[in-house]
Amino acid sequence: MKIAILAGDGIGPEIMGEARKVMDALNLPDCTIMEGDVGGAGYKKHGHPLPPETLEMAKAADAILFGAVGDPDCDNLERHLRPEQAILGLRSALGLFANLRPATMFPGLEDLSALRPEVAREIDLLIVRELNGDVYFGEKAIRTLEDGRRQGYDFMSYAEDEVRRISHAGFKAAQGRRKKLCSVDKANVLETSQLWRDVVIEVSSEYPDVELSHMYVDNAAMQLVRNPGQFDVIVTGNLFGDILSDQASMCVGSIGLLASASLGEDQTEFGTKGLYEPIHGSAPDIAGQGKANPMATILSLAMMLRHSFGRDADADRIEAAVAKALEQGVKGADLGGSSGTSAIGDAVIANL
Amino acid sequence: MKIAILAGDGIGPEIMGEARKVMDALNLPDCTIMEGDVGGAGYKKHGHPLPPETLEMAKAADAILFGAVGDPDCDNLERHLRPEQAILGLRSALGLFANLRPATMFPGLEDLSALRPEVAREIDLLIVRELNGDVYFGEKAIRTLEDGRRQGYDFMSYAEDEVRRISHAGFKAAQGRRKKLCSVDKANVLETSQLWRDVVIEVSSEYPDVELSHMYVDNAAMQLVRNPGQFDVIVTGNLFGDILSDQASMCVGSIGLLASASLGEDQTEFGTKGLYEPIHGSAPDIAGQGKANPMATILSLAMMLRHSFGRDADADRIEAAVAKALEQGVKGADLGGSSGTSAIGDAVIANL
Ligand SMILES: CC(C)[C@H](C(=O)O)[C@@H](O)C(=O)O
Ligand SMILES: CC(C)[C@H](C(=O)O)[C@@H](O)C(=O)O
Repeated sequence: MKIAILAGDGIGPEIMGEARKVMDALNLPDCTIMEGDVGGAGYKKHGHPLPPETLEMAKAADAILFGAVGDPDCDNLERHLRPEQAILGLRSALGLFANLRPATMFPGLEDLSALRPEVAREIDLLIVRELNGDVYFGEKAIRTLEDGRRQGYDFMSYAEDEVRRISHAGFKAAQGRRKKLCSVDKANVLETSQLWRDVVIEVSSEYPDVELSHMYVDNAAMQLVRNPGQFDVIVTGNLFGDILSDQASMCVGSIGLLASASLGEDQTEFGTKGLYEPIHGSAPDIAGQGKANPMATILSLAMMLRHSFGRDADADRIEAAVAKALEQGVKGADLGGSSGTSAIGDAVIANL
Repeated sequence: MKIAILAGDGIGPEIMGEARKVMDALNLPDCTIMEGDVGGAGYKKHGHPLPPETLEMAKAADAILFGAVGDPDCDNLERHLRPEQAILGLRSALGLFANLRPATMFPGLEDLSALRPEVAREIDLLIVRELNGDVYFGEKAIRTLEDGRRQGYDFMSYAEDEVRRISHAGFKAAQGRRKKLCSVDKANVLETSQLWRDVVIEVSSEYPDVELSHMYVDNAAMQLVRNPGQFDVIVTGNLFGDILSDQASMCVGSIGLLASASLGEDQTEFGTKGLYEPIHGSAPDIAGQGKANPMATILSLAMMLRHSFGRDADADRIEAAVAKALEQGVKGADLGGSSGTSAIGDAVIANL
C-alpha cells in the first residue's frame, strides 16, 4: 500500500495528523507513506501549487489522502499559481474522472441542517460528478475582439466516451445502493447536455436493474431543497456537479463530516487508484489552533481503504467509530460542540 | 399602454384570465390588449412555438404578460420546435437581458418552506440574472470528431459590454434596496467569469454607496441553503442565474407566488419595455381544472405596471391585495389551501 499524504494549507496539516494517528492505530500491513507539499504550501516552498516532485509522488502512489488547499496569501497570484490549481492539476494528470460525494445525514445531527428535521433526516444520496471534462478543461481565454471589446470565453464539451465512463460509474454506484440513478443536465438548452443524455440512455441498457430518470439542473437545485430524500444516486457533469454537490452537502448541515473520493481507471492490487479528501476547505481563520474537526479526513481515509485497497472491514470500523464518537457527544465547534482536533482523533481511535 | 398577453400552455390560460380580471378592475387608462399564441399552443396552431405574428405583436407592445409554456405533447419535437424555445426566442429577439427574480418570504407562509422557519423568515433577496448571453446563446452542436467519437459542445462567453449593462442593473437594484450586491461567478475556473468579475469591479466605482462582494457559484448554492437572509441583491450570468434563482425560489417554498420581470434597453413612455411572467411552469397535470394559483401571474402584472408603466401606486395596490387575501386564508392547493383559481382572483380584486 503506497499512500501519498498531501496535507496542504490552513487546517490541512492538523486534520491530517489525526488521520495518520488512525492509520497507525489500524496496524495496516506493508504501508509506505510519502508526504508532499501542495497548494499554497507547495507554492511557498517550490514556487508551484503542484510541484513536480509532488506530482511524481502522486503518480507513484496507489492512493492519495488530500487535506485542503487555499491560502489567503496566494489570492492575488496569477490563476495558474493559485492553490486550487493543485487539485485541478491532480484530477487531470491522474485521470481522476469520477468524483464520489456521499451526502448522508448522521443520526442525531438533524439540528445542524438549515432544512427542517423531517426533510433533512431523509438525506441519503451520492453525487457522482464527472471531473475531467466539461467547461473546466476546454480552451479558455480573455481576448480582445476585432471591434476592440474584451471577451472572456470557455469551451464546454463532452465526448461520448467521457460520458460513457462516468455513466458506468453512476450505474454501478446505484447498483450498490437503492438502484435509482438520476442524471442531471440542461438538455433543453445545451448540446453538451443533449449528447450527455443520449449516451446515458445508451448505457442504461446494460443496467436493467437500475431505474434511470433525468432532471434539468435548475429543477435539481429546487428538488435538493424541497425533498432531497427523493434522490439515491445523481450523476452529472463537472460544472453542475460542483454546484449541486456543495448544495447537497450544505443540506446535510455538517460539512465537517463529509468525505469524497476521486477515482480514475488505474487499478491497484486491491481496487482503484484514487484521491480522497474532505469536502471542507482549508479554513485559514482557525488554522493552527487545534479547533478543526478531523472527522471528514478520517472518513476520507475510510473511503480510501474501501475503494483503493479493498479493506472494507477497516473502512467499516472507522465509520462506526466516528458514528460512536458522535453519539458520545464528541463534536467539534463546527457541530456546536467543544472537542478539539486531537481529542476528536483520540475518541475515534478509542472507538475503533 | 400596449400590452401583449401570451397565455401559453397548461394552466397558462386560466391564470391569465384572473390577471385580466385584475386589469379590468384597476380601470387602467388607454389600454390596448393584444393576445397571441405561444409555446405548445403556438406550435399546434401555427407550427412554431414562437409564431411570426406573436413575435411581431411582442415587438409592437410596451409590455408582455406571459403565462407559462410546456406541453407534454411537444416533448419529442426537435429542440427548435419545443415550447421553451418561445421564451428563449423572445428574450433574444427583444433584447431582454435583465431578469429580475425577487424571492421574498410572505409573512405567515414560513411553513411551506423546507427550510427551518427561522432561516426561511429572513429571505428577502433579488436575483438579477443576465439573460441574453453566456453558454445559452453561443455556438453549439453535436458533431463527430475526426476520430469518429460524437461530441456535444457549447461556447460560453461574455463580452465586456454585456457584463457592464447587467452590472448596472444589479447596482441600481441594490440602490433601491439594502445596498448590498453579491456578484456570483466561478472565476477560479472560468475565464468568462474572470472577465465578469473584472468588469463588475470596474462598474462598482460608479456606485460607491453599494457594498459589493464576490462569491463562487458553488459557495452561493451552499449559502442559499445555510443562510439565505445574508443576501440582498445577487447579480450573475445566465446559467448560474438559472440554477440559483430556482433554488432561491424553492427556499421560499411558495413558488406559486413568485413573479419575474425580464427587461431590455427599450424605453416605453413611462418606463422600460419588459416581459413579465410567473416563475412556475405550465403544470399540465392540473390544467383546465380551475385549481391553479393565479397569484404569481397577478404579481407579475404588478411588476409590469411598476417597471413598464411607472404605475407604482397600482402595483402597490395589487401587492397589498394579494398579501391581504393570503392573510384572510385565501390559498391555492399549492399553499395547502383549497381556494380555486377564480376564487383567488375574486378575493384579490375584493381587496384592491
Ligand atoms: C477549487 C475548485 C477549482 C474546485 C472545483 O470547482 O472543482 C472545488 O470547488 C471542488 O469542488 O473541488
Ligand atoms: C425553459 C428554460 C429554457 C428556461 C431557462 O433555462 O432559462 C427556464 O428554466 C427559465 O429559467 O426561464
